[in-house]
Amino acid sequence: MGKGDKMSWGGSNRLQTSAYGSINPDIDSERKAPSFDVEKLTNLLDGGADRTRIRRSAEHVINSDAVFSRENQYFLTQIERYEAAVKKAVHLRQKMKELGWTDDGPEIQSAFGALGGDVAFAVHNGVFMPTITGLGTDAQIAKWVPLAQDYQIIGTYAQTELGHGTYLRGLETTATFDTSSQEFVLNTPKASSIKWWPGDLGRSANHAVVLAQLYTLGKCHGMHAFIVQIRSLVDHSVLPGVKIGDIGPKMAFEQIDNGYLIMQNVHIPRENMLCRYSEVTPDGSYIKQGSDRINYISMVCTRARILSKELVPALSKACVIAIRYSVVRRQSELKPGEMEAKILDYQTQQQKLLPQLATTFAFHFMASTLEAFCNQVNVQIKTKGDISSLPELHALSAGLKALLSEICSAGVEVCRRACGGHGYSMLSGLPSLYTRVVASCTYEGENTVMQLQTARFLMKCLTRVDCGQPLPQSVSYLSDPISLHCSAKEKTDYLKPFIYTEAYKHRAQRLITNAGIELQSLLQSGVEQYDAWNSTSVQQARAAIAHCQYIVVKNFVETLEGLKHEPEIQRVLKMLCDLYALTGILVDAGDFLHDGYMTGRQLDLMTACQLDLLALLRKDAVSIVDAFDYPDQQLTSAIGNYDGHAYERLFEWAQKAPTNAKVNLAYEKYLKTRFQSAQSKL
Amino acid sequence: MGKGDKMSWGGSNRLQTSAYGSINPDIDSERKAPSFDVEKLTNLLDGGADRTRIRRSAEHVINSDAVFSRENQYFLTQIERYEAAVKKAVHLRQKMKELGWTDDGPEIQSAFGALGGDVAFAVHNGVFMPTITGLGTDAQIAKWVPLAQDYQIIGTYAQTELGHGTYLRGLETTATFDTSSQEFVLNTPKASSIKWWPGDLGRSANHAVVLAQLYTLGKCHGMHAFIVQIRSLVDHSVLPGVKIGDIGPKMAFEQIDNGYLIMQNVHIPRENMLCRYSEVTPDGSYIKQGSDRINYISMVCTRARILSKELVPALSKACVIAIRYSVVRRQSELKPGEMEAKILDYQTQQQKLLPQLATTFAFHFMASTLEAFCNQVNVQIKTKGDISSLPELHALSAGLKALLSEICSAGVEVCRRACGGHGYSMLSGLPSLYTRVVASCTYEGENTVMQLQTARFLMKCLTRVDCGQPLPQSVSYLSDPISLHCSAKEKTDYLKPFIYTEAYKHRAQRLITNAGIELQSLLQSGVEQYDAWNSTSVQQARAAIAHCQYIVVKNFVETLEGLKHEPEIQRVLKMLCDLYALTGILVDAGDFLHDGYMTGRQLDLMTACQLDLLALLRKDAVSIVDAFDYPDQQLTSAIGNYDGHAYERLFEWAQKAPTNAKVNLAYEKYLKTRFQSAQSKL
Repeated sequence: MGKGDKMSWGGSNRLQTSAYGSINPDIDSERKAPSFDVEKLTNLLDGGADRTRIRRSAEHVINSDAVFSRENQYFLTQIERYEAAVKKAVHLRQKMKELGWTDDGPEIQSAFGALGGDVAFAVHNGVFMPTITGLGTDAQIAKWVPLAQDYQIIGTYAQTELGHGTYLRGLETTATFDTSSQEFVLNTPKASSIKWWPGDLGRSANHAVVLAQLYTLGKCHGMHAFIVQIRSLVDHSVLPGVKIGDIGPKMAFEQIDNGYLIMQNVHIPRENMLCRYSEVTPDGSYIKQGSDRINYISMVCTRARILSKELVPALSKACVIAIRYSVVRRQSELKPGEMEAKILDYQTQQQKLLPQLATTFAFHFMASTLEAFCNQVNVQIKTKGDISSLPELHALSAGLKALLSEICSAGVEVCRRACGGHGYSMLSGLPSLYTRVVASCTYEGENTVMQLQTARFLMKCLTRVDCGQPLPQSVSYLSDPISLHCSAKEKTDYLKPFIYTEAYKHRAQRLITNAGIELQSLLQSGVEQYDAWNSTSVQQARAAIAHCQYIVVKNFVETLEGLKHEPEIQRVLKMLCDLYALTGILVDAGDFLHDGYMTGRQLDLMTACQLDLLALLRKDAVSIVDAFDYPDQQLTSAIGNYDGHAYERLFEWAQKAPTNAKVNLAYEKYLKTRFQSAQSKL
Repeated sequence: MGKGDKMSWGGSNRLQTSAYGSINPDIDSERKAPSFDVEKLTNLLDGGADRTRIRRSAEHVINSDAVFSRENQYFLTQIERYEAAVKKAVHLRQKMKELGWTDDGPEIQSAFGALGGDVAFAVHNGVFMPTITGLGTDAQIAKWVPLAQDYQIIGTYAQTELGHGTYLRGLETTATFDTSSQEFVLNTPKASSIKWWPGDLGRSANHAVVLAQLYTLGKCHGMHAFIVQIRSLVDHSVLPGVKIGDIGPKMAFEQIDNGYLIMQNVHIPRENMLCRYSEVTPDGSYIKQGSDRINYISMVCTRARILSKELVPALSKACVIAIRYSVVRRQSELKPGEMEAKILDYQTQQQKLLPQLATTFAFHFMASTLEAFCNQVNVQIKTKGDISSLPELHALSAGLKALLSEICSAGVEVCRRACGGHGYSMLSGLPSLYTRVVASCTYEGENTVMQLQTARFLMKCLTRVDCGQPLPQSVSYLSDPISLHCSAKEKTDYLKPFIYTEAYKHRAQRLITNAGIELQSLLQSGVEQYDAWNSTSVQQARAAIAHCQYIVVKNFVETLEGLKHEPEIQRVLKMLCDLYALTGILVDAGDFLHDGYMTGRQLDLMTACQLDLLALLRKDAVSIVDAFDYPDQQLTSAIGNYDGHAYERLFEWAQKAPTNAKVNLAYEKYLKTRFQSAQSKL
């Protein structure tokens, strides 16, 4: 957008001359002597130097191609954003062929990262095709997937309805088998059953995997998936019996045509039911073959991937923008008589931003661990049909998705507001980071529902503890003895990981145990199960959150232990780990004081320790965010570029706004004659 | 937008038949037997039945006039929103003349409320004119104000610069007096001094009150205000030496042309400096006459009015929408075998929404009290020149603006997310409530800066306590003895206002005293004042927040005491007051446990008490939000209308989205031939 963006600016390893002549000296001075090797930290975050190379090369493909430019994105209408996203998707498919990138290779993942989600057909690629692969027979896969891969058909995944989201059993769309015609007849019988939200549906898709209640021979067999053609392949017209439209403007995702779908007696052949696990025979009999629970793993892994694909990138970008801006922005005299201070030198600004930076690292490592767990369970299932780890993985991914999406959304917003008025301008890049990331609190399972699913798992684990049965690894601590008091005596004790890890563990143990006791006591007093659950659900949700917070801290500490051979990197990460853990305790101080595990005096020492960490980390803050290695094009922020020329770029970008077009109809129509009448009076 | 909106739907007193045939039975049943008189509560919120009548009549003027329609607002571009806003502003001025509404009468205030801020010239009316009136001589007022009132000139207020916001002394724009020409010469000498953000500037204004450093005879005299013509009255062209533009897209306020202004040697006559309090004589001498601190009151009152004009309306509308939707939306079986439950019947949903409802009332009463205090100080100043209450009023309005804007923003977002996917649709009305209200955390003084200003006042008060000097009323509690323990013994004790008020008081006393001790101890150990302040600023900000939270709770309790003659209304408000106070303690539990003022056991009882309140208030929730008496047009929400037809209206509105226009260029350009090639393969 600005002149600077035409160059491949970004992380510490891709420096070129700034389009504004030089690096802003206020940001340049911050990079004089980082206390660690920035490139090494980048490599660590990428998972090795090789992965860094691959990522940079893929990013270069995207950032050097005009079709993929996000220039002017803040100035486009919803329709223009959609058109650009379709163009990019088709162009990317072409590029992939040329470059020999595979659908599951690291290059395309990096490319998607570089595109910032600004590309069409995410549901087609990410859900429509995988559903066919997961639930279809080999013949169905052979028929549909090649066409889909080549974008000769575009499919959507139509599950959510106007009146039903997370609660799948409540879906009202029906697919009724008609033995005479050997067809399924699909219907959305009322307003609340209109399919609502599916991506790629409103304007692009000509096919849909529709989730519907299967009826055959007068009996309902529950939710099944059907491939339904919805638009003509010849002229894209909507097929008879089908109504489709766009659901209108949303908080973000302007580029996606989330749509609605109404079906009135839409007939599809019997073969279009995805029937790897269940089938309707020509005579209308329903046959179940094997369990589709195996397929459940893909839904769980999709949820887990949100952490690394959406949450961590959003928070890390917000940190980059806000921290760079905070060393360029000066405000008020800190020391009388001196020039105005960089706002990052104010303790209040450090207190806002540096814990977000620490959180980014905590969540990055958590996302890696969760993905590794997903892969492990996937292998167990695929190779041995062993689904025994699925409940643990489900509980963990549900709870972590809920926790991390809440905290990342809040964190991005903290970063945005910390940039004052400029953080309110779309050109800062921060508003759209927020409006996009916050959607993750709702999609792939609403957060409160997710927390309560984790809580149900925890309650089951408690029962196992009572029966002396072994527990899955992530919850094994529930059978550990509960320590009574935090053993920290002086300020530096709070820099000992076992001190704070133990505190998180204690809190989780206490809240989970108490939720269990409360539930049992209601049941024993004769309250019905559903009522007892509802009456303790606020407490249950809190317990689930405490569990996940413990897991995140423990995981950060364990990750650090694995970095003993990189003491310099470990040192800076250790500060971030300490800051993350201590901030979390101070924010929820009541939880740790409640039963006297900690005292007010201990928390005062911990506060002092946390403030010390802020002052220490402040020195390396710019170098740490440089290590995220985002090229400027991926930040799409006028105030967060590597060269620190925030004001110049804001000014340059603003002038391109369509609101600066010459014609001003409002003046012509409503103001001109009024103003002219003042001419003689002044 | 929907058919329903063509009728004057809304609050309990304006019922008509629903455009969808009938009221949704799920919401209808909620209104069967409210435990209080809804109209009485409406009257109380309005400040009397007469005010209710005036408000409804003014709202009717707006809602029955097609020019003011907000129909389709979610579908318009930034330019279209701006044009509509100018049209509305001009039309409103005309209406005011016809109806005899005065600029400071109650009708126009209600009309602005009904317009939801979707009208141009807010800065012209709210800042440009009042600044001339406040800082101008009688002659200046006589010259400029009549033209401005008639929109023959439109003015903006150009204070904020690209590089300077809240810290006024740092502004870099200069106005240098040239004795030879008897003119001031205005300059924005570098990028960071470009005027940035002024409303009505980008496309509308032909004049600006510019804040600039005054230089005369080589000496700087600090910030002064100058009237500068910036566009031609004849053809609206930008005048020589001036550059103007729109600053581009923002998180909200699409209808406002926030702009930038560059001045290079712009000459204005000597008479254009606003000189009620200071003047430059023809020979270049600078003369100060009286103190402009008197004028400071208007800035403070503007900040105070944000509470009632922006914050409370945003949170109350979000509550109306989310609570109505939560009795229409059904999800999951609560009781096995029964139909899916209304989501408001889930404890977790009550825990999200009902405290927001309680907060709305707490803040409504706080806003009223603060405005009364403003008026009182205004009278003191105008009649006796007595500015002795100004520091207290400033500290209170700064701290309350910061506290309430944070909590209202967070509360609106809680309501939005509680509506799941539909809360993410712009058509729900919730996203735009959030993106608008959250701006208040930044404008009229960034919140952290505001908190620290309150903290400075509190620290001064502490010094007075040490010297035995009397304290202003709102902080007099600082000289009260500190109680050591909460005296509550059983659950019902937490329904006693003195129990929770005392707890808030104790917390504020402790945090403020500790912040003072910490500051003093640093100073006594030889740390410099600026450094000591910065090192304790996180703690200072917390102390200021605790002070304001105490004020809000105390004010709610005192308001209730004044309602003894309305026992029925008092009863429902008492529940809301209890819920507000208890929720606040539970959220910040650590503050109350820290020094042993409360025990974990006491907090457990309080939690039980709070959950009981949720269940009680749930029964009246819909009637309580009905009492806010918003006509449907003012909610502009597809899911929050009085008749409860959320799904029908969402569907109806979505179809009007411009994305549903027939032509699909993306298909024509990028997909058509691909799709056609699949035709033969399926």
